[in-house]
Amino acid sequence: MTAFDALLRWLDIAGIAVFAASGALVASRKRMDAVGFVLVAAVTGFGGGTLRDLLLGRIPPFWLRDPVWLAVAGSVALLIFFTAHRVESRFRALLWADAVGLALFAVLGAEIALLSGATPWAAVLLGVVTATFGGVVRDVLCAEVPLLLRKEIYALAALAGAAVFVGLRMQGVWRDPALLAGMAVAFSIRAVAIARGWSLPAYKPRPGRDYPDRD
Amino acid sequence: MTAFDALLRWLDIAGIAVFAASGALVASRKRMDAVGFVLVAAVTGFGGGTLRDLLLGRIPPFWLRDPVWLAVAGSVALLIFFTAHRVESRFRALLWADAVGLALFAVLGAEIALLSGATPWAAVLLGVVTATFGGVVRDVLCAEVPLLLRKEIYALAALAGAAVFVGLRMQGVWRDPALLAGMAVAFSIRAVAIARGWSLPAYKPRPGRDYPDRD
Amino acid sequence: MTAFDALLRWLDIAGIAVFAASGALVASRKRMDAVGFVLVAAVTGFGGGTLRDLLLGRIPPFWLRDPVWLAVAGSVALLIFFTAHRVESRFRALLWADAVGLALFAVLGAEIALLSGATPWAAVLLGVVTATFGGVVRDVLCAEVPLLLRKEIYALAALAGAAVFVGLRMQGVWRDPALLAGMAVAFSIRAVAIARGWSLPAYKPRPGRDYPDRD
Repeated sequence: MTAFDALLRWLDIAGIAVFAASGALVASRKRMDAVGFVLVAAVTGFGGGTLRDLLLGRIPPFWLRDPVWLAVAGSVALLIFFTAHRVESRFRALLWADAVGLALFAVLGAEIALLSGATPWAAVLLGVVTATFGGVVRDVLCAEVPLLLRKEIYALAALAGAAVFVGLRMQGVWRDPALLAGMAVAFSIRAVAIARGWSLPAYKPRPGRDYPDRD
Repeated sequence: MTAFDALLRWLDIAGIAVFAASGALVASRKRMDAVGFVLVAAVTGFGGGTLRDLLLGRIPPFWLRDPVWLAVAGSVALLIFFTAHRVESRFRALLWADAVGLALFAVLGAEIALLSGATPWAAVLLGVVTATFGGVVRDVLCAEVPLLLRKEIYALAALAGAAVFVGLRMQGVWRDPALLAGMAVAFSIRAVAIARGWSLPAYKPRPGRDYPDRD
Repeated sequence: MTAFDALLRWLDIAGIAVFAASGALVASRKRMDAVGFVLVAAVTGFGGGTLRDLLLGRIPPFWLRDPVWLAVAGSVALLIFFTAHRVESRFRALLWADAVGLALFAVLGAEIALLSGATPWAAVLLGVVTATFGGVVRDVLCAEVPLLLRKEIYALAALAGAAVFVGLRMQGVWRDPALLAGMAVAFSIRAVAIARGWSLPAYKPRPGRDYPDRD
């Protein structure tokens, strides 16, 4: 195992851990018990990679092949079960954990798709799927408005990161600088969107008027 | 490519386009940004076919094999982002776009299942899955009551269309008249249900009394 | 077919039937029409096994291979459509039907996973997936709070049942006593949790204080 493969494995574990943390933070907002924390953490951490693996035909998915992934998600969930009340704002903590996971998984998901023989086009889309699906399932399960559909820039950050990574790889750039560049792009875009409240212009029913949408 | 194959491809594109339009109309009701429009449009347009492909083992699903599908869904979504405010009632427009998509996908989904070697029985069910799943994901994601579960006749229209198509094919009828007959049946049933408010009798807790259901 | 295989098939049918009943009872709480009853019953009965089959690469899933499963789910749904108003509390009936299904599917799902060559670890997890996923889809589709995430012990019962079954099998215990022991464990835990209102300690924002969670 080269130093790079070790890095890749650590990034993967970090991605599962931060998404698991984001899931556990939603569980804390919903006052679930410890099992609920572990379930939501696992679904959030594994969801995106599972859908990617199903779409690529990689059966069985990673979390059935190695107990380490459930151990990571479960430990993070229990840690947060006992410490979340110390966090100033669990919603801010959730946003930032989710942002780190988004950046890691957009690029790692695209990498796994390329390694499985996907076209560059499919690899970029599968990066976005890997980065976003776990969070969507987390939010639907817990009856929260999906972060994906809130007004801050979200899917676009994953798309940019995955596209930068795949584009650099197609240009012959080595894997590790390409990975780091893709992650940096995705995280920076999402971070600025969170910190400054950046958003894309939303749909308005009529220009210049703002009334509740009834139809 | 025969004239019929060309027709089939156009019907497929039309199905993606109208379901994408229905997704974008829900996005407009929820005042999402342009990326949200594209995401909901794509999920609605691709959802049913993706589940069908996963259940048949057709990996990877169609939208990862050819960029045209995302181009179609994205163009429709952006068109609606800029024009939906001109629509009299976005909910009526949504109902009709969804009805056209339902009719096209019920039959096209059954056709693809037959071509993949499914039994007639499985082909009819996969037609219903193809026609309904995208809309269900759209509605769950956007926290709307699924059209599938509203009281107007919906799944039954898809079932009738898929069954007519598969039945005619089993009788030896050529593919194009069978396709058109199935689509006509599905669309007619759904159209009458929308236009006249037709519905099946719903469950009532006690005959003759109508009180809120608390248990 | 040995006596045991016959038992296994009957247990499978019973599992589909009770989960279908739980789905139909949710449909009755939502006052759907008869088609809605059948749809929700089928999704609840088939959901867990379908996800298990997809994760194991068993394509197509069982309900596309044999019409008997839809016949079972549909008959149960229609029976409940006409009789649910006679049930004292549809929510209690739903809880108990769901509990029986949970116990059966946790063990039967793990058994199918072992037969498909899964490791003991994966088999236990797939037992939990088989037992819980159908109910989650039922609840999300009908906009109810998932039973899985309520405070009573739920996933833990499925986990215990699947683990007891797989553990006994690994120790060389014959299949039928192992199956029955696993089901008894899962059902007993869940039954006590329902009957006595047992639950695990839930997350509290601050020790000793109990205020609405706003962040």
